[in-house]
Amino acid sequence: MVGKLIKAIEEKNAPIVVGLDPTLPLIPDHIKEEAFKKCGETLEGAAEAILTFNKKIIDKIYDIIPAVKPQIAMYERFGLPGLLAYKETIDYAHEKGLIVIGDVKRGDIGSTSEAYADAHLGSVKIGEKEFIPFGEDFCTVNPYLGTDGVKPFVDVAKRCGRGIFVLVKTSNPSSGEFQDQKLSGTDVTLYETVGDMVEKWGEELIEDGYSDVGAVIGCTYPKVGRYLREKLPHVFILVPGYGAQGGTGEDLKVFFDKEGRGAIVNSSRGIIGAWNKEPYKNDLGAERFDEASRCAVLDMKADINKAIGR
Amino acid sequence: MVGKLIKAIEEKNAPIVVGLDPTLPLIPDHIKEEAFKKCGETLEGAAEAILTFNKKIIDKIYDIIPAVKPQIAMYERFGLPGLLAYKETIDYAHEKGLIVIGDVKRGDIGSTSEAYADAHLGSVKIGEKEFIPFGEDFCTVNPYLGTDGVKPFVDVAKRCGRGIFVLVKTSNPSSGEFQDQKLSGTDVTLYETVGDMVEKWGEELIEDGYSDVGAVIGCTYPKVGRYLREKLPHVFILVPGYGAQGGTGEDLKVFFDKEGRGAIVNSSRGIIGAWNKEPYKNDLGAERFDEASRCAVLDMKADINKAIGR
Repeated sequence: MVGKLIKAIEEKNAPIVVGLDPTLPLIPDHIKEEAFKKCGETLEGAAEAILTFNKKIIDKIYDIIPAVKPQIAMYERFGLPGLLAYKETIDYAHEKGLIVIGDVKRGDIGSTSEAYADAHLGSVKIGEKEFIPFGEDFCTVNPYLGTDGVKPFVDVAKRCGRGIFVLVKTSNPSSGEFQDQKLSGTDVTLYETVGDMVEKWGEELIEDGYSDVGAVIGCTYPKVGRYLREKLPHVFILVPGYGAQGGTGEDLKVFFDKEGRGAIVNSSRGIIGAWNKEPYKNDLGAERFDEASRCAVLDMKADINKAIGR
Repeated sequence: MVGKLIKAIEEKNAPIVVGLDPTLPLIPDHIKEEAFKKCGETLEGAAEAILTFNKKIIDKIYDIIPAVKPQIAMYERFGLPGLLAYKETIDYAHEKGLIVIGDVKRGDIGSTSEAYADAHLGSVKIGEKEFIPFGEDFCTVNPYLGTDGVKPFVDVAKRCGRGIFVLVKTSNPSSGEFQDQKLSGTDVTLYETVGDMVEKWGEELIEDGYSDVGAVIGCTYPKVGRYLREKLPHVFILVPGYGAQGGTGEDLKVFFDKEGRGAIVNSSRGIIGAWNKEPYKNDLGAERFDEASRCAVLDMKADINKAIGR
């Protein structure tokens, strides 16, 4: 699957993934009003607004990006109707030829991780038939439980031609609390130890120089990015934290290899909330929120491609 | 909420939570056949079988246990119909007066954890109305992202009178890979560092001697349990790993305080799969799977109460 992602990035000349992380304040009023008129001011109404919002943004940007990354928490917040909108967003993105990275950050003991892996990367057999519960192409995985909590995701990814991104160094302010701790008698941090495991977990799944077992490393920590990019040559990096969380194009250079490959940068609020932000706010406004998203993607693309010299 | 849990444990004289973690092989054929006849061999059919199975078990044991712990992965595996069965299981357990611990192991950056906390412990406001997406009383939380990933759960727990259990030392074989690492220049492990944070996160939420911010510590690691029980006086411990994962009553003693309080022990497959296991298999069989679960709960209760001298 990482081969397919690399190809899509090359074709669109954009190492960019758009985070579809809708909240009600990010959705323009006219979309919400129409949804509430149709489904009431209910979980169903909120889910309808989210789905319409996502579809309109996807329609406007699918030709210039390789992938989207819906954050499942933003859908789970609206219960079952929200999760239906999550599934329908995945299906719609696939219809438009986009790769879908499900940002689910699941991880548990072995037999339970297997259930999550079936849900998000694989399928489930009922009688003689196979069903695909959610159908993402990649998902994110939390490594706190160790190898037996991650391995089921690797196994399902291998069997079903999918991929994962394991949390190594997250973009949030307190990520260092545990992840930056140096281990006894060494100069090695926890995130580095996890990173080494990621390289190892993926060693049999390498395609086009990179493995289907990638890492999440926040662009808010460029020094970490520089270090791990060199240390983990086959690990494809999913880089959150650009834009709203404070990262810039220059910070991102270090996550890419010498050919400008090996990483994909996520922006969520910076793209889907562009209509309500400078410099897009005045020109375009709420009615043309989808065009604002397109402009924000193009600006982000220029910023990153300039930084990595593409 | 921990006060309510402690009271329920006292009333039932059973520091026991039953893990409702159904898989298709654990469900007797006659339940599956009826569900498939009604809904087809589909995700809906599997979800119907799960819900019927859970309800029949709850009916048979609700009077002798304080709480159930559905593992959401086992429902997520069956997509949206599975998650509907998760929600309906929560609602049914509440109807029967049980406390529900949602084993969701969520955790993300701050704004995303907030969405998960709304989903599982809180509510979401749409227009002027509040909706409860899932409605668990407690949920489990993964701490890998640090304080800003956990804090939103603590805040929602406080606001809504709910509680959480943070993963400290999990029951699985490879939990030590990262959790047991000793930190540089100290004799302190990662799980201990997380444990200290759990004590701190909950310091304002203490009721009846324990805090609403508890810890998950696997009974497969009794030495860790003994150590942390002494070190973290206000942390209520959720103890997985009894039965199918290898833990015994004697191992559990160390998780309780001197009055036999401060912990609740989970068994999942050992209870819900009892009908297909010795010594319950021959006597009761698949038709009376719910009675087998009741017998297994009573045996577990006797085993644990003997060990802790209740």
